[in-house]
Amino acid sequence: MKSVNVNQNIIDLEYAVRGPIPQRAAILKQQGKQIIPCNIGNPQALGQKPITFYREVLSLLENPNLIIREKYISKNYIGDFDNISNYAVEISEYLLNNMETGLGGYTESKGYYFIRESIANFIDKRDNIDSSKSDLQSNPDNIFLTDGASEGAKAILELLISDKNDGIMIPIPQYPLYSATIRRCGGTQVNYYPDEDSDWTLNKDILVESFQKAKDNKINIKAIVVINPGNPTGAILDKSSIIQVIDFAEENDLAIIADEVYQENLYGSKFISFAKAIGDKSIPLFSLHSVSKGFYGECGQRGGYLEVRNPPPVSNSTLSFTELLFKVSSVNLCSNTIGQALVYLMVNPPQQGNDAFDNFTQEKQTILDDLFNKANIIRKSFEEMDGMECFGKIGSLYLFPRINKLPPKITDFEYCMTLLEETGLCVVNGSGFGQKPGTYHLRIAFLPSIESLKSVLPSWINFHNKFVNQ
Amino acid sequence: MKSVNVNQNIIDLEYAVRGPIPQRAAILKQQGKQIIPCNIGNPQALGQKPITFYREVLSLLENPNLIIREKYISKNYIGDFDNISNYAVEISEYLLNNMETGLGGYTESKGYYFIRESIANFIDKRDNIDSSKSDLQSNPDNIFLTDGASEGAKAILELLISDKNDGIMIPIPQYPLYSATIRRCGGTQVNYYPDEDSDWTLNKDILVESFQKAKDNKINIKAIVVINPGNPTGAILDKSSIIQVIDFAEENDLAIIADEVYQENLYGSKFISFAKAIGDKSIPLFSLHSVSKGFYGECGQRGGYLEVRNPPPVSNSTLSFTELLFKVSSVNLCSNTIGQALVYLMVNPPQQGNDAFDNFTQEKQTILDDLFNKANIIRKSFEEMDGMECFGKIGSLYLFPRINKLPPKITDFEYCMTLLEETGLCVVNGSGFGQKPGTYHLRIAFLPSIESLKSVLPSWINFHNKFVNQ
Repeated sequence: MKSVNVNQNIIDLEYAVRGPIPQRAAILKQQGKQIIPCNIGNPQALGQKPITFYREVLSLLENPNLIIREKYISKNYIGDFDNISNYAVEISEYLLNNMETGLGGYTESKGYYFIRESIANFIDKRDNIDSSKSDLQSNPDNIFLTDGASEGAKAILELLISDKNDGIMIPIPQYPLYSATIRRCGGTQVNYYPDEDSDWTLNKDILVESFQKAKDNKINIKAIVVINPGNPTGAILDKSSIIQVIDFAEENDLAIIADEVYQENLYGSKFISFAKAIGDKSIPLFSLHSVSKGFYGECGQRGGYLEVRNPPPVSNSTLSFTELLFKVSSVNLCSNTIGQALVYLMVNPPQQGNDAFDNFTQEKQTILDDLFNKANIIRKSFEEMDGMECFGKIGSLYLFPRINKLPPKITDFEYCMTLLEETGLCVVNGSGFGQKPGTYHLRIAFLPSIESLKSVLPSWINFHNKFVNQ
Repeated sequence: MKSVNVNQNIIDLEYAVRGPIPQRAAILKQQGKQIIPCNIGNPQALGQKPITFYREVLSLLENPNLIIREKYISKNYIGDFDNISNYAVEISEYLLNNMETGLGGYTESKGYYFIRESIANFIDKRDNIDSSKSDLQSNPDNIFLTDGASEGAKAILELLISDKNDGIMIPIPQYPLYSATIRRCGGTQVNYYPDEDSDWTLNKDILVESFQKAKDNKINIKAIVVINPGNPTGAILDKSSIIQVIDFAEENDLAIIADEVYQENLYGSKFISFAKAIGDKSIPLFSLHSVSKGFYGECGQRGGYLEVRNPPPVSNSTLSFTELLFKVSSVNLCSNTIGQALVYLMVNPPQQGNDAFDNFTQEKQTILDDLFNKANIIRKSFEEMDGMECFGKIGSLYLFPRINKLPPKITDFEYCMTLLEETGLCVVNGSGFGQKPGTYHLRIAFLPSIESLKSVLPSWINFHNKFVNQ
């Protein structure tokens, strides 16, 4: 068989979240070792229960025959089991009435219109947009439902990158979807470095320095990616950082790609969306959200959306930017309908006064409290680890401590691999996300149960202090 | 706002299935006109009911609490409604026991291993592979679960195309996913022309002619795409055509991409898979299947798989072809879990002896009989249309008649657009799929209900004979 020459961009791309360490973890697991998979924000893999209300609705959508039964059961007390809430039945009927082709048909390429409309309402409400200011309101025609948020990010990058000198600014460290996709599309990754010691804040100097250096190398920068709350840092961007990114983008005619999939993971802090902060400036903004994170954690069901604001004029086509995105989404046919339904549920939580509200609110709060609690427990354990420092206000699902002390010639990769071998704890080396040269980190998702943490953290502390002082 | 220069490949790609005619149909529909959407193989949009057994299982997977209830209900006859089959309950428990992270967790990048294993068994059984011949057996490690079949096709093309001179042979007419994706990846589309008048058969001369012409133009052809049963032609490839494709690929060191998503849509003919026909030859083969077509028609739930056989050695990387595909699938995280579960159900139909079997079999047969019946009714109506000819043994979900007579300077695009405006019937012009220069066609999905056909076909015949003779 003749050997083939394959796409160099695919050969070059790297994706550490599922790279050598998790692959080794899979092998160890097959061999019977107990693994705690903290390499990825996959809550239900670590025991987080799905939100009951969501699953009630989804089950009724898959099998509408059950709706008749639910109505019967709710009228006649039957059997010794929890009933599906009346509100879940009501919402399922509403959804089925509006989903012209149910779950089984291809939808419009962008996703069901009524769901995009409800996303637009959610965004306006979240951002407190005055209903009289129609130019600030979200437009359902510029919303695309996607299989998770990654698909939206990929579509934007693929469209923006038309040449190897086209650059995209990304924070370092970053979620490797961005570096991988820029590489895959044949563009140039332009790093900027949030200030770790100041809790990963940003300022214009940082951004201008990176921009200027790339410009000097003849890179044509088209957009800046911001991940807020951060991945992998877990840090929440303060208002000043957000404003400086916006001013910088405006001054340099850049689009902003705002990865806001962790917007529910702020644990008490207030979320400021880029859409809100941009206000009436005409900066192109692409924002991403997903049902995979927050307190929903429905990663496997692959729901998400991309909102486009101020789509930029296109110089080399008579089609608009949104029309070109539409064309890409048509080739994909449509995102999966369960994911679309979940996005609807995410943007329309049960309200006080219906019978799903109390349980929903309690489940939500328990999950968020539990996450914050676990983050704090892990972070506290860093104090017992020699030379381990962690910055930023806790957000998203991750901690990204800096390993200030390591034996000579040992990197965070070897640290994490040995940690895995010795304790079963699977985390990702900082170099998988990029980091300032000479620094070392790791990313841990704060998802394992408290019991599991209580068992593994002492071993980690023990491992750490031996390893770094060897 | 500065205008941006966007990716020329995206500007250039075309996808007629959701192009100007369906877009016009959407507008007419908003205006209140009744539209019969035959532009796309979307069975449930035209009233096809989902298979009850599938939906029962999916509802229990979404809400496992219902399993307890189902067991209670099946023990105590309750209420006046159909019960979920015991077998659906049993399979749901089996699936939940094997899906380590349920529906809500990211799965392995390639999809749940036990589902890939069951796909491999399905393929071996379908192809009658002797269990002693392990080298002919399907390998779960080389199977990738995907969001519909399109994703698999895109992954292969993206990996194979490394240069603008890399060529992929595609049949003309073809499903425009292929032309669009080749364009998107910056490669070269190399057309070959199945022989319409001989029922869209293939022979080596046809293939060699196309290959040689491209080679003379310095195109490095890497693979040949075959769609069987055909889309848009709806024709079933005979054994001789399949063997000649295989011989041709072997002689010229090409990989075969076999789009076999319509393998259940043969209406009495026997399906010959490329995997079976290749046997022990070492030709690289990528075959695609999906839950969207067949009698399942679960398009919106986006389930499918890609099977790789004889992956070619890679000359420019130390990673193998399958490892590179794995890397791409890791960036996508995983395909949606409902789609994965549906693939499991597709490859494991209920067997005689369980209580879901009779109903399942009857629903399946009714759908397939109905499709064949509708195809014949439409095809028969062509006899009453002046200069309309249709070739090939009926397969897949489409008819692709040739319009031999058209007024001067009028193409199939205008024909289809006017047909839409006058009758509400939405079909796609042959030029959207490619066709031999000087010929005109249209593609119609034979999905509308018999009643709907009985009402629209006379109008179509009437429209046609007036239009072509104007």
